[in-house]
Amino acid sequence: MTATIPAGVESARDLTGPAVAAAVDRLSPDVRIVASYHLGLTDAEGRPAGSAPAGKALRPALALLSARAAGAAPERGVPAAAAVEFVHNFSLLHDDIMDGDTERRHRPTAWTVYGVGAAILAGDALLVLAQDLLLEDSAPQGLWASRCLSAAVQRLIAGQGADLAFERRDNVTLDECQQMAGDKTAALMACACSIGAIYVGAPADLAMGLAGFGAHVGLAFQLTDDLLGIWGAPEVTGKPVRADLRARKKSLPVVAALTSDTEPGRELGALLRQTEPLTEDDLVRAAALVEDAGGREWAEKAADSALSSAGQCLADTDMPDDVRAEFAGIAEFITARQW
Amino acid sequence: MTATIPAGVESARDLTGPAVAAAVDRLSPDVRIVASYHLGLTDAEGRPAGSAPAGKALRPALALLSARAAGAAPERGVPAAAAVEFVHNFSLLHDDIMDGDTERRHRPTAWTVYGVGAAILAGDALLVLAQDLLLEDSAPQGLWASRCLSAAVQRLIAGQGADLAFERRDNVTLDECQQMAGDKTAALMACACSIGAIYVGAPADLAMGLAGFGAHVGLAFQLTDDLLGIWGAPEVTGKPVRADLRARKKSLPVVAALTSDTEPGRELGALLRQTEPLTEDDLVRAAALVEDAGGREWAEKAADSALSSAGQCLADTDMPDDVRAEFAGIAEFITARQW
Repeated sequence: MTATIPAGVESARDLTGPAVAAAVDRLSPDVRIVASYHLGLTDAEGRPAGSAPAGKALRPALALLSARAAGAAPERGVPAAAAVEFVHNFSLLHDDIMDGDTERRHRPTAWTVYGVGAAILAGDALLVLAQDLLLEDSAPQGLWASRCLSAAVQRLIAGQGADLAFERRDNVTLDECQQMAGDKTAALMACACSIGAIYVGAPADLAMGLAGFGAHVGLAFQLTDDLLGIWGAPEVTGKPVRADLRARKKSLPVVAALTSDTEPGRELGALLRQTEPLTEDDLVRAAALVEDAGGREWAEKAADSALSSAGQCLADTDMPDDVRAEFAGIAEFITARQW
Repeated sequence: MTATIPAGVESARDLTGPAVAAAVDRLSPDVRIVASYHLGLTDAEGRPAGSAPAGKALRPALALLSARAAGAAPERGVPAAAAVEFVHNFSLLHDDIMDGDTERRHRPTAWTVYGVGAAILAGDALLVLAQDLLLEDSAPQGLWASRCLSAAVQRLIAGQGADLAFERRDNVTLDECQQMAGDKTAALMACACSIGAIYVGAPADLAMGLAGFGAHVGLAFQLTDDLLGIWGAPEVTGKPVRADLRARKKSLPVVAALTSDTEPGRELGALLRQTEPLTEDDLVRAAALVEDAGGREWAEKAADSALSSAGQCLADTDMPDDVRAEFAGIAEFITARQW
């Protein structure tokens, strides 16, 4: 498997970037400075950031492909692509506060630079901006795209709410954890894969097929991310090694291990319940216990299975062959094994 | 002047309450518990709160009146009224975090009960719910109502952003402060007064007249609130006496005093710039300095002037006489002097 960024992802940023920048320019100065910084358009002093690490623009790329799947020029999907990117970044701005994360894309998170209040507001503003972009062209498809996005945002909020609640619970089931991942990650990915088509007026069966593909890819992506959070190299993840274990996150492989009814699973439970901070040795042992309890194998198989279901959705949905190939390329890219 | 709650405000709560409760029921359990608590539907343990202090439902009352102004039954304005109420409460949930406020409506604020993360999410969810209510009936008016609400939310965010920025600045002008109040308070009030009419398909001139009325009332309301924050009795405001001075808020009367180019104004500036906490004696002196510098008189006159402009908008806009009288009654109620 390859980890080279597909060309479509790069060109999506070129196409969507100006629309994103123009929309951010509408915000009031105090809010704009925070949103621009978070999006990598400017540095902390508000100066244009020439070659900022602005994230991978995966979701805009999927949204533009989605418009092309419906036979439209990718340009026509730009408002939908920018809207999805804004919603993704709204959730990052708020999640970083909730999770106390201090670094994102190798830069200090917005709340550490501008304060919690300013970062909350910037997130709020991007959420509203997303809907504005979809609704300001008064074509009826904008309304459908807006409802597609709203539904995804409510699931995203539900998933993050469950994730927060899991931190205080010792009895999270694998079903609950999969539901959470579906809400928190897969819903917006399903939206990204279908909203471009919806926005250009595609028939429902195409939109449904693309959404199904996106939901499976989203789940595979979350599983990959969870595996990287335990076994990924810091230079790949941008986070310290075993970061998710250190934070005692109830990620999918961890919950699979905890609920495995095996001796290593029970040992892992006892280790994660201990009140003292986890030492480096504890973390190494925890990772081994997840593996011994079958959590790693379960997650790798689940990712394979989700990816294969995604491929099936793609095969079953009518679209130009080059578009199908690009969708498959992005799916492969974001679930490539680097651990 | 009277401070009796107008009958229309009470009946608005009866009419809008079930729609609000039904919409909140759609949220995921972890998010719903926080939103329900904040809205006064439940107590902190999630038990139904029989006679909870659920806020005054002013904005829903204005939205229902707005539908009646367009000749529609108030029932038809219910989705718009609930949407405005959700946006208002989205902003309260987030503002309480930003301002560090620990009490609202005589109860602990949501973030103190459920944590900052859960309160951010509950606010996010109410914001999205507001748009959902307007857009799920696919009548074209829902789209216009949604855009009216979006524009108000962006101004609300801009106003709160400016308010936060003012805390770190010593040179806020009265113009900037009035702009901030217009964004933070008047914009949503203008929306509340016009969105019901827009939602039932009223012509633009009616919507514009109602929005003008709401903008002026909103400014008068903010000025009244600022005066109460200095001279209001705790039993009226629900906050400690001189709470705004203690927090060194750059409210309108304070900024009018600070920018008055008078000796008391300069003294006030020096007092509020001191790094030590303000004593009770300092607060009494600060209130006297605001008055001596003309800040109180300026704010009272500005409130009178805004209220008179609101009355003029009402007189100039075509609507049934009983609706006009109810609008005037609410305007009088929310700007009644109780200091």
